[in-house]
Amino acid sequence: MKKIGIVGATGYTGVELLRILATHTGVEVSIVTSRANAGSRVDAMFSNLRGYIDLAFSEPDVEKLSACDLVFFATPNGIAMQHSKVLLDNGVKVIDLAADYRIKDLSVWEKWYGMQHATPELVESAVYGLPEINRSHIKPANLVANPGCYPTAVTLGLLPLLEKGVISAEGIIADCKSGASGAGRQANVGTLLSEASDNFKAYASDGHRHQPEIAQTLSLLVGKEVELTFVPHLLPMIRGIHATLYTQASKKYDLQALFEKRYANEPFVDVMPEGSHPETRSVKGSNICRISPHRPGNGERVVVLSVIDNLVKGAAGQAVQNMNLMLGLDETMGLTAPAFLP
Amino acid sequence: MKKIGIVGATGYTGVELLRILATHTGVEVSIVTSRANAGSRVDAMFSNLRGYIDLAFSEPDVEKLSACDLVFFATPNGIAMQHSKVLLDNGVKVIDLAADYRIKDLSVWEKWYGMQHATPELVESAVYGLPEINRSHIKPANLVANPGCYPTAVTLGLLPLLEKGVISAEGIIADCKSGASGAGRQANVGTLLSEASDNFKAYASDGHRHQPEIAQTLSLLVGKEVELTFVPHLLPMIRGIHATLYTQASKKYDLQALFEKRYANEPFVDVMPEGSHPETRSVKGSNICRISPHRPGNGERVVVLSVIDNLVKGAAGQAVQNMNLMLGLDETMGLTAPAFLP
Amino acid sequence: MKKIGIVGATGYTGVELLRILATHTGVEVSIVTSRANAGSRVDAMFSNLRGYIDLAFSEPDVEKLSACDLVFFATPNGIAMQHSKVLLDNGVKVIDLAADYRIKDLSVWEKWYGMQHATPELVESAVYGLPEINRSHIKPANLVANPGCYPTAVTLGLLPLLEKGVISAEGIIADCKSGASGAGRQANVGTLLSEASDNFKAYASDGHRHQPEIAQTLSLLVGKEVELTFVPHLLPMIRGIHATLYTQASKKYDLQALFEKRYANEPFVDVMPEGSHPETRSVKGSNICRISPHRPGNGERVVVLSVIDNLVKGAAGQAVQNMNLMLGLDETMGLTAPAFLP
Amino acid sequence: MKKIGIVGATGYTGVELLRILATHTGVEVSIVTSRANAGSRVDAMFSNLRGYIDLAFSEPDVEKLSACDLVFFATPNGIAMQHSKVLLDNGVKVIDLAADYRIKDLSVWEKWYGMQHATPELVESAVYGLPEINRSHIKPANLVANPGCYPTAVTLGLLPLLEKGVISAEGIIADCKSGASGAGRQANVGTLLSEASDNFKAYASDGHRHQPEIAQTLSLLVGKEVELTFVPHLLPMIRGIHATLYTQASKKYDLQALFEKRYANEPFVDVMPEGSHPETRSVKGSNICRISPHRPGNGERVVVLSVIDNLVKGAAGQAVQNMNLMLGLDETMGLTAPAFLP
Repeated sequence: MKKIGIVGATGYTGVELLRILATHTGVEVSIVTSRANAGSRVDAMFSNLRGYIDLAFSEPDVEKLSACDLVFFATPNGIAMQHSKVLLDNGVKVIDLAADYRIKDLSVWEKWYGMQHATPELVESAVYGLPEINRSHIKPANLVANPGCYPTAVTLGLLPLLEKGVISAEGIIADCKSGASGAGRQANVGTLLSEASDNFKAYASDGHRHQPEIAQTLSLLVGKEVELTFVPHLLPMIRGIHATLYTQASKKYDLQALFEKRYANEPFVDVMPEGSHPETRSVKGSNICRISPHRPGNGERVVVLSVIDNLVKGAAGQAVQNMNLMLGLDETMGLTAPAFLP
Repeated sequence: MKKIGIVGATGYTGVELLRILATHTGVEVSIVTSRANAGSRVDAMFSNLRGYIDLAFSEPDVEKLSACDLVFFATPNGIAMQHSKVLLDNGVKVIDLAADYRIKDLSVWEKWYGMQHATPELVESAVYGLPEINRSHIKPANLVANPGCYPTAVTLGLLPLLEKGVISAEGIIADCKSGASGAGRQANVGTLLSEASDNFKAYASDGHRHQPEIAQTLSLLVGKEVELTFVPHLLPMIRGIHATLYTQASKKYDLQALFEKRYANEPFVDVMPEGSHPETRSVKGSNICRISPHRPGNGERVVVLSVIDNLVKGAAGQAVQNMNLMLGLDETMGLTAPAFLP
Repeated sequence: MKKIGIVGATGYTGVELLRILATHTGVEVSIVTSRANAGSRVDAMFSNLRGYIDLAFSEPDVEKLSACDLVFFATPNGIAMQHSKVLLDNGVKVIDLAADYRIKDLSVWEKWYGMQHATPELVESAVYGLPEINRSHIKPANLVANPGCYPTAVTLGLLPLLEKGVISAEGIIADCKSGASGAGRQANVGTLLSEASDNFKAYASDGHRHQPEIAQTLSLLVGKEVELTFVPHLLPMIRGIHATLYTQASKKYDLQALFEKRYANEPFVDVMPEGSHPETRSVKGSNICRISPHRPGNGERVVVLSVIDNLVKGAAGQAVQNMNLMLGLDETMGLTAPAFLP
Repeated sequence: MKKIGIVGATGYTGVELLRILATHTGVEVSIVTSRANAGSRVDAMFSNLRGYIDLAFSEPDVEKLSACDLVFFATPNGIAMQHSKVLLDNGVKVIDLAADYRIKDLSVWEKWYGMQHATPELVESAVYGLPEINRSHIKPANLVANPGCYPTAVTLGLLPLLEKGVISAEGIIADCKSGASGAGRQANVGTLLSEASDNFKAYASDGHRHQPEIAQTLSLLVGKEVELTFVPHLLPMIRGIHATLYTQASKKYDLQALFEKRYANEPFVDVMPEGSHPETRSVKGSNICRISPHRPGNGERVVVLSVIDNLVKGAAGQAVQNMNLMLGLDETMGLTAPAFLP
């Protein structure tokens, strides 16, 4: 059994990691840290874990964390970059679920995240943890930057089209909708039930941190800058991301075949039958991304629908998928339960 | 007091009409018909109306309806077209909240609505009841086709841009999200709470009846065919439509000023302060459409955000606005209550 | 037009007061204070009020407030008691929507509210603002303690039974359920959408501040101590309180007739037809309390079902009802709109 | 691998059975029947099962079902009683998730279910499938009546008190709240999202089918008739039952110790730490019942809070627990995943 540490597990990605790892047969969670809650039991905060996680939160401690095989940072942005170097030096593998190592261009990162990077030297070597494009690099990696939730849904929806040159790299639109858990477990008026549960709105339409992350991945894929408009919206529900992607492609391409072929061997990408409208609930609690490409009226306009659970394939599940790859375990271990419907 | 009849008031547009008219000081509801519920009290079905509407549903009866000044059809598609002629001949004004008179091109209508039109001769004379473009024609009209919910939100969001030639008539995208009340008060598995309340999905992405309605209005505005991709989505909440509209415009145009000027005298269109993200809850229960145009990154890409309450400005409220115009009443009568927040 | 001030209008009772008063024809809101938001526009915080309330929040200022005819305190507990005396001395009428003047026994108040009372001399003269029992005292009052939300629903459900001696004063159970807006517009993890929207739980089952308030009112009614178990629960929705009240009464009493007679002349209490199950949505946005008494199996067990909108009859609406009485206006002014369904 | 058949798997208990059995390592689902959907793929109806259940619905066929080791009836009331005899005669074990075999007194059953029983001779031999009281009878049983959802939550909450004679058998109140999935996957106006999602109400307060079921179980436990008032309410969410149980007990009893001792060895009953308020979300998707007994103000009044997921411990999960016992498998097999939070 590999030993796992989780730094900062009091948020939604943290509790979701714990839920998934609670029944994972290849690893055991040995340390769960939280400065603010040190000493109190994990299952006092998250009662779904009663009987599963027999641990108290502890102060973050480099020595104890260094006894782990792999440490997840489920912390806010700017924390992992301060503490991962010493762990890596001590031979511990690290997965950051925040954004510290996602953006290769430091000036872009610093602009969007509003701070100076503490360990720029690690940024270059960090592997972007989207297995569908980087599996071979993730396996030997010591430091993996787990992708953002929106970037996962959008990138998987555009990959087959961009890789094959079927669409242009310009004028792409990603109209995205996310459940409120994406905003985290922070006391905040804007995401109170009374504010957000009978409401729908766009936000950050003039710029969101996930835009440069998506653009970077797509641009690397096609070898030139991809121009993408990204508008996120807040859904009155807890989990789920739905990306509605607009682009254009010559009528000669069979999009359904293209997607099916591209993802034929991917354990966590499901190309739905032609004409489907993937539902967020069809992936609730699961690590699967379901996708369906459309051509309204059989024209050149292409609409790709892509759904994930933002806390699973968009965060903790993908992190476990990366962990499995990094530790030489079966990639799907701990991630095989079907989604939860209704 | 003008006398009002409502045919088929057992759905959501019907009960919303009754809610609004219950405190309207210029008219009184004298007949509410429902074949299936004839004889039972209206407030037994809709308990919010206890103390407000002291009527039972009655069988539709031409003679009694002909004693009204104006009759609303809050019926499914295909009913108003069968019964409005005799009322019009008897001097009764008619507003159809369904789609029977919205589309001028009969072949288009018959294709999308799957039936033959019963009174094609009335289609031409019917006025499309969007006061923001047709006020002067609505006032003297005897037959008004109340617009669809999506068309109202989308058209108001694009009007100022198309009228001024600021955007091209091609490549427009309307990514729209609607609350479940838009699907009506029909027994249906797909809109059960257990199916739709913790879920989000697109639907009809390959073609929706509101697409030709929007296209017709916009094409008339600009004098040529407007090409528009329309993808509706189902929100896990009851009321509200949010249209996210994507188009392009030269950087030279000041969109905020353009919208503010266009709607300066409109009582029910609110152009929000620059940079705003209109929320559906800000119009819940009210007849207002709130709009905000954006230019992400100050480029040529334009994103217009437009919200309405689908049952009010998208149906019953707009119908009352049209009624006020047709009966020579103050346009805002009965529609002045603020939205309902939280 | 009477002049109205609102102290602390940034919470849900505040915005609801503003919504109701926005179309009230007998008063005008002239001052809205908020220390934290002084200088910013009210409608920038509450966009439903755009076009209705053309005011900015201001610093609380005794002089300006003293120019009002009546001031509402929509502040947290412990504020009104510090500031109402000077206003009263200046001839301003005061309604406190918090709990400062609800409990006559200071030691009870201080125990439950955890602070010392600042103006104990005002407690005795304050009138408990439940018009259904205190109308004649409210009319001439200068200081009214607006009842709590749970106490309103529970008291109205038990009144007719206790007044007539139909039930014993012991062993009464009030199993109550409230929407999350009752917890206020405070940044708080527990009432985040992601915590509270797909969940149901009891809270404070070992003691809640509204228990002594209910007990006091009922005990005054019957002239002896009423013994009541009160268990509140948190509903995954915004508005609405449902009280399910359990007691016992001899089979000889006709409960339906008793309730109908008691409330025959009450404008805001609706005794539903026999056998009804009042729904919270039937009072959403309205000042009405709907009630239905039941006798399961026609035995001695009595179950009374009582629903209100916690922000209206449970807070702002009842405060306006009290204001109308205190200012000599029609009691229902501004409160006549039907509830909002669906 | 044991072979399992499911009759009528198009409802919520059916899809939940399939979700649980999809990863169960001791059995395989070999037949899923639905008369109405015969021929169509199971995962076309329930997209969460794509990749898990590679079956089409088939016509119910006695011969094919008789090749199973065990058959679940996830059908409406009145179906299992017609078809289980032949299966039992063919040596197939049967679990009915509906109510056909729950009530021993046929006249009571026929009154509440409005039909004549087709196989009264089986009623007596059927075992009531609540493992916490009937484990030893379930193991050898051929026919198990899976308990109702409310009865499971209520019975587990009262068991320890009644078994020990700590409370009287009279005057017990069960105020219960259920998510809308309890109403099933039937097209129905009353459980539409637009009707039930922003609403709360009691229903059937004058009598519900689960009342005699609860009373029967409790009466058998104590050897005399238990008198219980049961009022169910409809929650605006999908899953979860919360029972708030009111009774009385002498102060001399340590309720917490009593509950902890009673359930110490039960794998699916969790007595929470003293003073807890169990949340429905803490059991969402899991087979656990979480319970907490309270004494408000340390008096004789006892309030027990009990939560389950109505589709798991209240239906499909408990059915799998019974199946495990009947087939000689580990009782917890397939039921070990933690609940799903947030």
